[in-house]
Amino acid sequence: MQVVVPYAAHAPKTRLEPLLDADERESFARAMLADVLEAVEESGRTATVLATGPVDVDVAVIVDERPLTEAVDGVLATSDDPVAVVMADLALATPTSFDQFFETEGDVVIAPGRGGGTNALVVRHPDFRTDYHGVSYHDHLAVARKVGASVEVFDSFRLSTDVDEPEDLVEVLLHGGDRSSAWLERRGFTLETGAGRVAVVRGWNERPRVENG
Amino acid sequence: MQVVVPYAAHAPKTRLEPLLDADERESFARAMLADVLEAVEESGRTATVLATGPVDVDVAVIVDERPLTEAVDGVLATSDDPVAVVMADLALATPTSFDQFFETEGDVVIAPGRGGGTNALVVRHPDFRTDYHGVSYHDHLAVARKVGASVEVFDSFRLSTDVDEPEDLVEVLLHGGDRSSAWLERRGFTLETGAGRVAVVRGWNERPRVENG
Repeated sequence: MQVVVPYAAHAPKTRLEPLLDADERESFARAMLADVLEAVEESGRTATVLATGPVDVDVAVIVDERPLTEAVDGVLATSDDPVAVVMADLALATPTSFDQFFETEGDVVIAPGRGGGTNALVVRHPDFRTDYHGVSYHDHLAVARKVGASVEVFDSFRLSTDVDEPEDLVEVLLHGGDRSSAWLERRGFTLETGAGRVAVVRGWNERPRVENG
Repeated sequence: MQVVVPYAAHAPKTRLEPLLDADERESFARAMLADVLEAVEESGRTATVLATGPVDVDVAVIVDERPLTEAVDGVLATSDDPVAVVMADLALATPTSFDQFFETEGDVVIAPGRGGGTNALVVRHPDFRTDYHGVSYHDHLAVARKVGASVEVFDSFRLSTDVDEPEDLVEVLLHGGDRSSAWLERRGFTLETGAGRVAVVRGWNERPRVENG
């Protein structure tokens, strides 16, 4: 099984702008990518990064500047083996959660993300193609039905948690991989308890000033 | 195993106030409770509601006006059998997810909720007590360590999703139990795709006017 990890090499994680500047967002995205790649490798599979531009990692990189759906479909169209597609911001993923996911039987296995997303896919059917726009969870169920592929939905809190919004940093601090959680802690992020769910606050360690742009 | 479902009988789900009036919040909380009770029963266990006041359901009800932690600890202190505690707003729970959770071995089994919460517990150790205030996930790990109880963390998107905030309604519409999702649909809630995660909007069916208070 080929495990593909799509990664936006340019300006990743823009929705974290309320908390992190552009350099920090890129650095944090790289920390999450490293955690994901390590969890894939420790699950016994080989990861390939599918990036919109060059990226310096210890695994193979396919550069494809097209949007996510087209780039992933390009891999699906040219692979004879099953393909897994796991997002680069699954900072809570563990070798065990990935292993159980990759081992789940079905022509198509979907790990839904919060908000209707698709955080991870296993594709074992030659005609299945992706549609990451909109409510991709629904779209992927519909595509599978259309091509006659059996579907399994994989139930995992860890794989359901992609890190896009400021509130998601709470989950990284609580349950995240070593690099991602340490990255946040080094920059002063801590948990804050109040009414409702726990939030993150940034404490003593202010954002580094950006000098010379 | 006794399965206890705590339920706030008075003014439940206050954080849904931006979308639902008080009567609706109570009605929706009851729909979720019914889905949870059905999923527990279909998993082959018997549910008992632990409520802050009388509540009309088809299962046994223990009325205890104390705060959640004290009420649950009251059950733990008087039970010789293992006790499971599952929240009444786990609208995505299924018989399968509950069954796998109840079957997981360990003196204490925790299904974490988003934001540091504890959405479901299995307690098989006589000295374990709860602490639902604050980051209860951390607190419960600490209590288990202190009393020498082994801990398993149960990884489930369905059990991690408690329904407290407006954004959580998206998950109910996408993955929720029959009564909870139908309740929202009947009142005009639909998914809205925009930038970022999918949101809910309330359409044609306006809030019913509250007459005579």
